[in-house]
Amino acid sequence: MAHLLSTHSTFTLTKTSKSNFKYQNCFSAVTFQNPKTSHLTLKSQFRSYQNKPFTALATSTIGQDITSKAHENSNDQFLSPKNKKVMVIGGDGYCGWATVLHLSKKGYEVAVVDSLVRRLFDHQLGLESLTPIVSIQNRIKRWKQLTGKTISLYVGDICDFEFLAESFKSFEPDAVVHFGEQRSAPYSMIDRSRAVFTQQNNVIGTLNVLFAIKEFREECHLVKLGTMGEYGTPNIDIEEGYITITHNGRTDTLPYPKQAGSFYHLSKVHDSHNIAFTCRAWGLRATDLNQGVVYGLRTDETEMHEELCNRFDYDGVFGTALNRFCVQAAVGHPLTVYGKGGQTRGYLDIRDTVQCVELAIANPANPGEFRVFNQFTEQFSVNDLAKLVTKAGEKLGLEVTAVSVPNPRVEAEEHYYNAKHTKLIELGLIPHLLSDSLLDSVLNFAIKYKDRVDTAQIMPNVSWKKIGVKPKTVSV
Amino acid sequence: MAHLLSTHSTFTLTKTSKSNFKYQNCFSAVTFQNPKTSHLTLKSQFRSYQNKPFTALATSTIGQDITSKAHENSNDQFLSPKNKKVMVIGGDGYCGWATVLHLSKKGYEVAVVDSLVRRLFDHQLGLESLTPIVSIQNRIKRWKQLTGKTISLYVGDICDFEFLAESFKSFEPDAVVHFGEQRSAPYSMIDRSRAVFTQQNNVIGTLNVLFAIKEFREECHLVKLGTMGEYGTPNIDIEEGYITITHNGRTDTLPYPKQAGSFYHLSKVHDSHNIAFTCRAWGLRATDLNQGVVYGLRTDETEMHEELCNRFDYDGVFGTALNRFCVQAAVGHPLTVYGKGGQTRGYLDIRDTVQCVELAIANPANPGEFRVFNQFTEQFSVNDLAKLVTKAGEKLGLEVTAVSVPNPRVEAEEHYYNAKHTKLIELGLIPHLLSDSLLDSVLNFAIKYKDRVDTAQIMPNVSWKKIGVKPKTVSV
Repeated sequence: MAHLLSTHSTFTLTKTSKSNFKYQNCFSAVTFQNPKTSHLTLKSQFRSYQNKPFTALATSTIGQDITSKAHENSNDQFLSPKNKKVMVIGGDGYCGWATVLHLSKKGYEVAVVDSLVRRLFDHQLGLESLTPIVSIQNRIKRWKQLTGKTISLYVGDICDFEFLAESFKSFEPDAVVHFGEQRSAPYSMIDRSRAVFTQQNNVIGTLNVLFAIKEFREECHLVKLGTMGEYGTPNIDIEEGYITITHNGRTDTLPYPKQAGSFYHLSKVHDSHNIAFTCRAWGLRATDLNQGVVYGLRTDETEMHEELCNRFDYDGVFGTALNRFCVQAAVGHPLTVYGKGGQTRGYLDIRDTVQCVELAIANPANPGEFRVFNQFTEQFSVNDLAKLVTKAGEKLGLEVTAVSVPNPRVEAEEHYYNAKHTKLIELGLIPHLLSDSLLDSVLNFAIKYKDRVDTAQIMPNVSWKKIGVKPKTVSV
Repeated sequence: MAHLLSTHSTFTLTKTSKSNFKYQNCFSAVTFQNPKTSHLTLKSQFRSYQNKPFTALATSTIGQDITSKAHENSNDQFLSPKNKKVMVIGGDGYCGWATVLHLSKKGYEVAVVDSLVRRLFDHQLGLESLTPIVSIQNRIKRWKQLTGKTISLYVGDICDFEFLAESFKSFEPDAVVHFGEQRSAPYSMIDRSRAVFTQQNNVIGTLNVLFAIKEFREECHLVKLGTMGEYGTPNIDIEEGYITITHNGRTDTLPYPKQAGSFYHLSKVHDSHNIAFTCRAWGLRATDLNQGVVYGLRTDETEMHEELCNRFDYDGVFGTALNRFCVQAAVGHPLTVYGKGGQTRGYLDIRDTVQCVELAIANPANPGEFRVFNQFTEQFSVNDLAKLVTKAGEKLGLEVTAVSVPNPRVEAEEHYYNAKHTKLIELGLIPHLLSDSLLDSVLNFAIKYKDRVDTAQIMPNVSWKKIGVKPKTVSV
């Protein structure tokens, strides 16, 4: 498939599901299908790396090549993954590592920037990934051996601007994917010092990234990991970043109001406001991926070798709902439903995380644009998940029970929730919806590694209300 | 005048203007005046320190005592200023010092908590207050000598939690007024390190205050200085903190969307989100005073002695629009209108700042409540202010001209602006509206001190777009 990059380039439409067509490098596209002829008309606006939009209008049957008639020339030199350099901050983490491999596989030149502090948290809290993981250095070596592809490594803290500046000047990224934040809500609620650390680390790290882009790579596209948790649980539909409000007879489109539920989630709200400002004031280009809860372990690339295996957290601090339930089911621990279990959130497979990030990179925001995508594929309540895991566990011969435990968080346990998530689909995301086979696979992984499970880490031991000012030396 | 504090206490209504009646310690009040008899009926809801609301219904002619008939007993021990301890963080600054004296005069027991870093900024940037100011220690001594009233002093940085904790345990505040933040937008846009300092200092300082209240004084009311700049300039009316949105057939009242225009303004947005969360999660009580641009110099208390004189900033970094214009007029410098001058903002007299803070303290938020007041009294565009100062200057025989200078900021120079500001009026604020006599007085002050003006400091030298990553050693 040729990339639609220049005036008269061609590309192929692929029918991927009943109503989805896969097309790449489109900024926005509308498809019309003639029901009689099966002919498809595609009207799209594409953009070059320099972000001069041009419109392509083409008609074809599915599977045929479409020749676009673009109104303006573009230069395909930068859009081709081969020539596009992507810096992945936090590239040693759960979402980060999977993304690094996916982008490298796709032909992007990738650098990992990571302080590796996530591994330190494990030591300090006495936690461990369910899956054994090797060092970042050995991960990268193994990848090179298997694929011949080089991943650069910059080990350091982005809160140290001198380090970040050197990394930028050395690697010269065209896109920065920023996963490099303390990402656990319970961690941020352990004690005062960890609350302060989370906000300081996340907010200042992101500020530094913004300054580095402005100073060294003004054209560089920032792809920042936000969270669906920024929105909280409002009693109206959640839109993607912005909402059009008519009030006292006047109308404006404004940032969607934020009601985050932990010091961690708040740090992402702060980031969003800071990034939006720099797009407005400096003309930076950024995409905020308000991601839902990620589940799953394998991606095409991490399963190539056991040394490429991703981390998998099941503990009360870093483990997230579905992954934690699978481990609980595997070891015969009751599924721990917090409170009433009506808490509804957006979820996605880690294979979709890596797809979404690539789609954002391949279709960058315009200079000055602060774009927000809600990055999840399905909504579930905690009770829904418990039921699904119970059913899947029983199929594998596991006896699964669920118990309600006192909710350590302060959150609504019964609430309206309807969040939009169409923008990534429009860019071409083909979701991996939660299926029995995925649950089987995660459960089987959990069973495989069940001897590594420390059951003392499963229960929540961080209370939103009881957080105090004394440093807590958490230990089992 | 007795304070309406207990079941059958009395207080006096004073007619202060055509339609305003002054009453204190009311939570909300509705007055009805019988036009024939001049009898006044007041239906008010008051609250005690423990926040048990009770209703008082009373009839009187103006000037007479009103005996309230409250439905519930309350304990007046805490509401009486005499027994109410107020910690003013940032009590050595422009708004802070005026507030400290006003509260002390009113009978509150006041402590100043301040790192005095604002005085260090002056040294570092080569700036000076127009008015000579004495040390905080001597200010407090002079006040004691003049009034017999003691103001406690805690010198230290609230980002140092150990210091803040000791101050809380020692003073045991019933209310904390938090002015203790880096408060200049241009300062936050000088260079990367000052942008980072501003957000780190303001966000972490406020987090520490929230933790100190939770840990040591859970009933303590936080009165936090926010800014009208948090809202930006939306194309719809600005409400007080929250907006009711109907969207796709459903309705919710949500935090008003924020679009701040500098790293400083953003730091206040971050604070607002953090504080709102702690009210929700921990049941703290807080009032966010989204203050407009403050002008003026004198308050009743600061004019009692020259050693009580407040600071007055006219420079391009800390000087704000109206104050700066008065100094420019006094020294024959053209008034520097940034860009088109259509930038419209809310303004208030510093005498209203101190009134508003006292009203917030006297009528505390409920536990769990995050209350937002828009604290300004009038809207002006920069061009409006230039015209007013020109006119007032001419009356004093000054030749005043205005010039448009390239706008160092990134902001709309022509825009819709209509911000609500009724909540403080409902609590009893009697505004000092901008008048010729006030402008005369400020201009005369500026003339009196014109030999102290460093004209090199007047022009803006901080650019929103040119901010870089190298530390800027600003000097004249």
